[in-house]
Amino acid sequence: MFEIKAKDSRGRVGVLKTNHGNIKTPALMPVIHPRKQVIDVKKYGADIVITNAYLIYKDEDLKEEAIQKGLHELINFDGPIMTDSGSFQLSVYGDVDITNKEVIEFQELIKTDIGTSLDIPTAPYVDREKAENDLKITIERSKEAIEYKNENNFQMKLNSVVQGSTFLDLRAKCGDELASLDSDLYPIGAVVPLMESYNYGDLVDVVMTSVNHLPDSKARHLMGAGHPMVFALAVAMGCDLFDSAAYILYAEDDRFLTTRGTYKLENLNEMPCSCEVCMNYTPDDLRDMEKDKRRDLIAQHNLFASFAEIKLIRQAIYEGSLMELVEERCRVHPNLLDACRKLGVYSKDLEQYDPRVKKSAFFYTGSESLNRPEIKRHLDKLRDLDKKRDLVILPSSKKPYSKYIGGKLGEFYIYGSEMELDLDNTDFMVLDIPFGLIPVDLDDVYPLGQNESPKIEDFDSLNFVEDIMSEFVEYYSQTLIHSKIIKKFDVGLYNIHSDSDKIRFKKDDIRKIKSIADYQFGPESGEALFTGDISLEKSKKTGKIRHIYSDGKLIANMRAADSFFVLSTEGAKRLHNSSESPKNRVIVNKDSEPFTKEGKSVFSKFVVNCDKNIRSNDEVLLVNEDDELLAYGKSLLSYNEIMDFKIGQAIKNRKGIK
Amino acid sequence: MFEIKAKDSRGRVGVLKTNHGNIKTPALMPVIHPRKQVIDVKKYGADIVITNAYLIYKDEDLKEEAIQKGLHELINFDGPIMTDSGSFQLSVYGDVDITNKEVIEFQELIKTDIGTSLDIPTAPYVDREKAENDLKITIERSKEAIEYKNENNFQMKLNSVVQGSTFLDLRAKCGDELASLDSDLYPIGAVVPLMESYNYGDLVDVVMTSVNHLPDSKARHLMGAGHPMVFALAVAMGCDLFDSAAYILYAEDDRFLTTRGTYKLENLNEMPCSCEVCMNYTPDDLRDMEKDKRRDLIAQHNLFASFAEIKLIRQAIYEGSLMELVEERCRVHPNLLDACRKLGVYSKDLEQYDPRVKKSAFFYTGSESLNRPEIKRHLDKLRDLDKKRDLVILPSSKKPYSKYIGGKLGEFYIYGSEMELDLDNTDFMVLDIPFGLIPVDLDDVYPLGQNESPKIEDFDSLNFVEDIMSEFVEYYSQTLIHSKIIKKFDVGLYNIHSDSDKIRFKKDDIRKIKSIADYQFGPESGEALFTGDISLEKSKKTGKIRHIYSDGKLIANMRAADSFFVLSTEGAKRLHNSSESPKNRVIVNKDSEPFTKEGKSVFSKFVVNCDKNIRSNDEVLLVNEDDELLAYGKSLLSYNEIMDFKIGQAIKNRKGIK
Repeated sequence: MFEIKAKDSRGRVGVLKTNHGNIKTPALMPVIHPRKQVIDVKKYGADIVITNAYLIYKDEDLKEEAIQKGLHELINFDGPIMTDSGSFQLSVYGDVDITNKEVIEFQELIKTDIGTSLDIPTAPYVDREKAENDLKITIERSKEAIEYKNENNFQMKLNSVVQGSTFLDLRAKCGDELASLDSDLYPIGAVVPLMESYNYGDLVDVVMTSVNHLPDSKARHLMGAGHPMVFALAVAMGCDLFDSAAYILYAEDDRFLTTRGTYKLENLNEMPCSCEVCMNYTPDDLRDMEKDKRRDLIAQHNLFASFAEIKLIRQAIYEGSLMELVEERCRVHPNLLDACRKLGVYSKDLEQYDPRVKKSAFFYTGSESLNRPEIKRHLDKLRDLDKKRDLVILPSSKKPYSKYIGGKLGEFYIYGSEMELDLDNTDFMVLDIPFGLIPVDLDDVYPLGQNESPKIEDFDSLNFVEDIMSEFVEYYSQTLIHSKIIKKFDVGLYNIHSDSDKIRFKKDDIRKIKSIADYQFGPESGEALFTGDISLEKSKKTGKIRHIYSDGKLIANMRAADSFFVLSTEGAKRLHNSSESPKNRVIVNKDSEPFTKEGKSVFSKFVVNCDKNIRSNDEVLLVNEDDELLAYGKSLLSYNEIMDFKIGQAIKNRKGIK
Repeated sequence: MFEIKAKDSRGRVGVLKTNHGNIKTPALMPVIHPRKQVIDVKKYGADIVITNAYLIYKDEDLKEEAIQKGLHELINFDGPIMTDSGSFQLSVYGDVDITNKEVIEFQELIKTDIGTSLDIPTAPYVDREKAENDLKITIERSKEAIEYKNENNFQMKLNSVVQGSTFLDLRAKCGDELASLDSDLYPIGAVVPLMESYNYGDLVDVVMTSVNHLPDSKARHLMGAGHPMVFALAVAMGCDLFDSAAYILYAEDDRFLTTRGTYKLENLNEMPCSCEVCMNYTPDDLRDMEKDKRRDLIAQHNLFASFAEIKLIRQAIYEGSLMELVEERCRVHPNLLDACRKLGVYSKDLEQYDPRVKKSAFFYTGSESLNRPEIKRHLDKLRDLDKKRDLVILPSSKKPYSKYIGGKLGEFYIYGSEMELDLDNTDFMVLDIPFGLIPVDLDDVYPLGQNESPKIEDFDSLNFVEDIMSEFVEYYSQTLIHSKIIKKFDVGLYNIHSDSDKIRFKKDDIRKIKSIADYQFGPESGEALFTGDISLEKSKKTGKIRHIYSDGKLIANMRAADSFFVLSTEGAKRLHNSSESPKNRVIVNKDSEPFTKEGKSVFSKFVVNCDKNIRSNDEVLLVNEDDELLAYGKSLLSYNEIMDFKIGQAIKNRKGIK
């Protein structure tokens, strides 16, 4: 019932399918009060709403009406409706007058689209025994709910809520167990107290741990998250759904929700946004108004502000700037900045989902950007590449670096004992923020050439690139470091290479395309692809390499925007011949073989296995289980997602091989 | 014609008075095309507009109509109108068919509210000779315009534009010369190329230098700044007016202005804000629309987004969170972040205007926050305070620190050679980010107790506080540094004080109030205020000190929110007796003496001199030129402003002394 349409960081734009229509995610579900609702939330952008089945159950009149007319008519909403089960009441009052089975049955009876079992929301920081006992019940009830649903062939979809308090191992365990149940959606519960107390750092731990143990093919709901200030962060961690009672609760209390935090009416001299309410009223207008009218107007603002943020987040995912948005949003409170920094701990997890190539350049917004998955990924790639004997490290210049590196390069200090120069056996790299070391041949490959950072540097980024330099000099017999770098970093080198003035960077297109191929497909791919008599066709306008031929046959095209290769059939064959399965491969099952050969796109459910290093926007080989090359294409998802999804496309087929 | 209503950093909310009504600043003036205008900009929040007098002059029909009906009827706008002079056309085409006097005369003739002389906009990075020659003409024309206006008793107000290209000394010289002319408003010109090329770092240099040499009592206009992305930064540098042709020019090109940058329609999957246009249309709707209709809708969005930002900036000034807003906005592009960092160079200039106390807490948003004026100010104050023989440096805890400092404190390393403990002759300070060292007795004084920073620290802030510690240990005979700090900073101390376990922090209310008084009013103020038999009255609820009596007489009240003192008459007298003029004083002239004694507020024009260290929200003594105490009150402005303004209130009188 869930498909991914676009991805960035761990965030995704998706489609959630229900009996009452499709919902675009990330989505915000306004909480509807079954009796008191006065605002038509659809007008403000709500495609799905949430209401409380237990409250309806407890009210004889509502219950009767819900059973007779159905939930949709009861709350006058014809789109998808999710229902909560009374867990919140359970957490507040300690007890509820309904069993798990009863609430499941009741939700089906009133025709909810998505129901919820009666989980136990365990507060943060409780003692471990309580958390364990609660969790046991939560998991049992989830199992019971699913069995009960399956036995009775219920139509509604079912939520299984992740609990475990702030014990990360319990969250992990809960995630694993619920994942095995194959529920329809996975809410992450009992995080409201963390948000209310601004413990956003702990929120990151709880959410990332939960999400890491949940399937990628299901939508995740951050329960009770209704403040637009946290949406971007939550989406970057992999959350797809939010619910907002905040829009009306805050309005009751004369508080405005904004991405910059909460504004209290009494402190407002000016209205805080561009919405209809903020344009048509002044704070004084509102202060002079009757309570009810004022509350409704503020609630409308709150909905406008919340849905605008949801749309902006989706836009950021489409363009690949979600982390920039997160890092901006997290500036509004030091504890959110703390959360943003905490997210750096999970860089490895984010990397597994982050697209290889994005429409946007990488913008450095502060030291937090050093933790972005792109940087980790680049350094891992760089460690994997074959290394020459020597390394020359050059200071950064404008981009592309190679345009500014020519002739005499200046003085170079030696790390290691001096050896005679061997320029053909030397890697040339530029030291720069934030990617550390960038091989000059890769200077226009995404994101090494598509990134910007401020001229005035901070210590974190300086230390970061210095550490990278210190690591990489150890991989070479001799490293030659430009005097400008030595001046800046004071790395304690005193000997200038006696042949410093002979160090030259020689541009070499063949070396460059091989380097890019190695970086894209793995070491030795360049040699495998570009053998024989190589000729290049360059753009007349930009002078950039466009097409590469070997013995007259097209091997690959180089994409202008990111300098990665798109293979030809011959290129795909050469890459296939040169490496072992599953490297660069997506392996499809027997049934889909003919379709794949015909050039049809590959759906996740047909994939048997694939290279763990595949990320969305990678160029991949499509093979069968005997490793016969069937086609080549572009991956739309990352390894984890390809393996987990049962519906939707995984690979866009570029061309089948007959 | 300009008054300040609220201040933060160097930004101000002000009122600009014209013949067609008052304008609240910061204000955005949409550019109105005298012939083609279709959008009624008033609807979107425009209180003032700008149009081009030269274009009207050049068009025979428009010229005739403007002369007959007046400018306001011509462009159908009944509020204040500013006119530009043709300088832009001069900069583009190299020449214009009008003289300086002619354009001044014409602007008066068509009844503009604010006219402009024919300055020469000199582009950035030109050669020095050109910049100097252009500037000479610009300054001459400004002089000529003002003389011509005065001779003929023209009614319009007059702009004098600051030029000087990117030569900071020329900008300074121009500012000084124009300041001496006593123009009505000061635009800063020829900065558009800096903004178009994203050279925001240089923009900061140009604007800060210009503003530093312009009078504080006049409104400043950042000419051609129409992108909401830069408004907050510009306001924090002291700009009051912006003009926007961008709203329509960008719309012509299908581009959306937002505080996050520019979105091109072709790249939009979702609409980028909560305005009417963004709520009622999708990107596809717009793409399918006729060009004219689409342009007008995008222009409307651009106006909504721009005016929303202006309002949000004013709100930030009222609440004292302008720098937080600037630091957030500057994340949207690395070159803006560079500008934000560059602004740190001007911390001293910002400090001279930054209010002493704000409604908002200080939020650390990243290493850029270390440059905020509050931190510089605190460290300068700390350097000035009298010092005991020894210093004990404690690690940070939750705030207020003193609540968590009790009993045995742990092990202390010695800086200096070991001396016997003398706890009565010891200053106790906490080392914390971002304020460095905070005397424990000042732990609830604003902003030392009202600030938050993320738990996960960055290198910049760690280095920053380490440097402060390294500086301050030199001011004491013996410094005792807590082992936790030594562990964290590795400052190379190896000797633990043999009486470490005897180090205790003893709470002492009398010492505390004296410390606060010294911090607020200068060294030895505490001794002067709190002599005799001191008794304290504390809040029953919070336990905080509220009133301080000496020999039964009230000396001062301590404000709960910021722990600064508000003096009583007796307190004011003691402070007055203990110090020399002009310390803590505002000196008023003879004429205003009786009013001041009666408790009337003091207007800037009556102030003869005052203490250079006075900042807005300071408690001050009001004296006459013979240093007789007339009253005491709260300063609404900073020293520079008090001395420069000729209209408006400077000091709110708390009580006159008969």
